[in-house]
Amino acid sequence: MGNNRQGTLISFRPDIKVLDCTMRDGGLVNNFAFSDEFVKDLYLANIKAGVDYMEFGYKASREIFDPSKFGKWKFCDEKDIRAIVGDNKTDLKISVMADVGRTDYKKDILNRKDSVIDMVRVATYINTIPAAIQMLEDAKKKGYETTINIMAVSKVSDEELDEGLELLAQSCADAIYLVDSFGAYYPERIERLCDKYMGVAEKYKKKVGIHAHNNQQLAFANTIEALSRGVSYLDATVSGMGRGAGNCYMELLLSFLRNPRYNKVAIMAFVEKHILKMKQEGVVWGYDIPYLMTGILNSHPSAAIQFIKENRTDYTAFYQELIDNVL
Amino acid sequence: MGNNRQGTLISFRPDIKVLDCTMRDGGLVNNFAFSDEFVKDLYLANIKAGVDYMEFGYKASREIFDPSKFGKWKFCDEKDIRAIVGDNKTDLKISVMADVGRTDYKKDILNRKDSVIDMVRVATYINTIPAAIQMLEDAKKKGYETTINIMAVSKVSDEELDEGLELLAQSCADAIYLVDSFGAYYPERIERLCDKYMGVAEKYKKKVGIHAHNNQQLAFANTIEALSRGVSYLDATVSGMGRGAGNCYMELLLSFLRNPRYNKVAIMAFVEKHILKMKQEGVVWGYDIPYLMTGILNSHPSAAIQFIKENRTDYTAFYQELIDNVL
Repeated sequence: MGNNRQGTLISFRPDIKVLDCTMRDGGLVNNFAFSDEFVKDLYLANIKAGVDYMEFGYKASREIFDPSKFGKWKFCDEKDIRAIVGDNKTDLKISVMADVGRTDYKKDILNRKDSVIDMVRVATYINTIPAAIQMLEDAKKKGYETTINIMAVSKVSDEELDEGLELLAQSCADAIYLVDSFGAYYPERIERLCDKYMGVAEKYKKKVGIHAHNNQQLAFANTIEALSRGVSYLDATVSGMGRGAGNCYMELLLSFLRNPRYNKVAIMAFVEKHILKMKQEGVVWGYDIPYLMTGILNSHPSAAIQFIKENRTDYTAFYQELIDNVL
Repeated sequence: MGNNRQGTLISFRPDIKVLDCTMRDGGLVNNFAFSDEFVKDLYLANIKAGVDYMEFGYKASREIFDPSKFGKWKFCDEKDIRAIVGDNKTDLKISVMADVGRTDYKKDILNRKDSVIDMVRVATYINTIPAAIQMLEDAKKKGYETTINIMAVSKVSDEELDEGLELLAQSCADAIYLVDSFGAYYPERIERLCDKYMGVAEKYKKKVGIHAHNNQQLAFANTIEALSRGVSYLDATVSGMGRGAGNCYMELLLSFLRNPRYNKVAIMAFVEKHILKMKQEGVVWGYDIPYLMTGILNSHPSAAIQFIKENRTDYTAFYQELIDNVL
C-alpha cells in the first residue's frame, strides 16, 4: 500500500483496456430501447476514439425476460450485432454480459468462431461464484475472452471476499472486476480494495478491472485511483449513462489517458449528436441527492430511482424513509 | 508522500474546518443577486449543519465596481450582514474575501470589535504576494483571523510556488489555501501539492486549506484527498454552486465527515427549498463538457462560460478554438 502508484501522469501503460458499457448499463435506464442509428454511431465513435471494447448489452434468457418488453440489446442476438458491425473488421472488440441465473448461456452463447463477440463478461454475487465459474468455463471452451464481475462487494465481509477472490483467481477468467454497485466507496477504500484484488490476481497472472458508479461524484476519481494501483480494465459510459447515478464518464476517462490511441473528441461529437437529444427527450440519469443518500447508506439505488421517477423532492423525508428501511 | 494519510474513514479530526462559500463563489454565477430570504435561510441551514464558516461575499472596491451593477454581497457592508445575522451569537463564524488590487480594505474592513465578521480571506496571484501580505497584516492588526488563497497555481512554476509559499508561511496568515482555479488537478497531483504546502506550513505552525473546482468531476475527490493529506480548511458550496463547473458540493463533503457536529440533511433541506427553484429559473452552473475542456487545458473557464451562455453545443469546433487560443 501507500506510495506504489503505477505509471505517471504523463506516460501511458500499454496494459490499459477501456470498455464502453453505455448500451449495457445505459440500457438499464431506457430499457435497451436504443435506435439503430444511435448504436451504429456509437460503434463508429468508439472505433474513432480508440476504445478497446464495446459492450452491446446482455445475453438474457428469453424464458425469464419477455422479449416484447425489452429492446433487443437485452438479448444481443448474433444477427442484431452483425446488423450493426458486419464482421467487425476493426480494432474494437465486442463484449456482452451474462448474469448468473438469468441467462441460457449454453444455448444462447455461440462458439466464438460463429460469432462477432470477442468477450463474455459474467456478473455474479458472492454467493453464486460456483455457478459463475461454470459459465466462465463454458465461455472459455467456446473460445472467448472472459471477465468476472463480483457485484455488491460493499455488502460482503472481508472473509467472504477473500475466499471468493481466491476461487475466481484460480478460474479461467482473464480479469476480475472490482464493482462498486452502490457507489459507496471512497478513493481511499478503492486503493485498499485494489491492492487486495491485485494481490490475489497477480498470483495467477490475471488482470483486474474497475466498474464504478457516480452516487458520490466519485466514479471517475475511483476509476483513476484504481488505475494508479495497477488495475487495467476500465469501464466507462458516454456521459456516464447508466442506472441511477450512472457510471464513470468516458469523456473524462479518455481525457485522462495519455495513450495516443485514445481520442476524447470523437466521444464528445457523439454526445453532441445523440446524448443531448436523449436528455432533452427526458431520459434521466446521473448524480442527484437521492443517489448520494443510497450511496452513503451502501444500499441499492432502487428507492432513489423510484423517488426521482415520482418527481419527489422532499429529501429530508426520503432520508428518514431510507434510514428506516435500509439500516 | 505515500502511505501517510491522516485520520481514518471512521473517526474524525477536530482540526477540520468547513467553509461555505456559496454566496461568494456562487455570487459569480448570479452577480450576487441573492434574495434576503435565500441568505437568511442559508445562514440558518449552515448553523444547523454545523458548518464552521460562512462566507458572505467580497469586500470589493466601490471605485472599481459600480454598486448599481452588482448585488450587495459583492461589497458585504457591515449593515447588510447584520441585517441577516444580527450580532451572530452562534458557533458559525463569518468570513469575507478581498482580492488584491480590487478592494479598499484599509477603509472598508472595519476593526473586528466593530464588525460581525470573524475572518478575512485574501485572494492573490503569485505575482501580487507582497501586496497580499500587506492586506493580511492590516486584517490581523484589526483583529481578524486570516487566510491567503493563491489562485491559478496550476500555471505557476514549482520554483515560483516554493518561493511564494515560503513568503506566505512567514506572514501572519493563519492558513494557506491550495486553490485549483481551473479544475485542472487530478487527485494524484493534489496529493503531492498538499504534501508540499503542508511541509512549508507546518514549519511555521500554519494550517492549509483546499478550494477545488469541478471541471473534471473531481472537486469532492480532490477535497477529501487533500483532507487525508492533513489539510484542514475545506471549502464547499451548496450543490457546488460556483463559477463555471462550480465547487465541491457541501452535501457530499458533510456526508463524508464523521464529526457529529455536521448535519448534511440541513443542507439537503436548503437545496429542496432554494436551489431546485433557482435552477428551474435558469441559473446555470456545474460540470459540463466545455468546462472539462478548459480544465484539461489548464485554462480560465471564461471561454466555456461564454460557449454555454450562447447555447452552443458544437463541442468539436469549440475544442479546436481552445487549442488555437489557449495552448
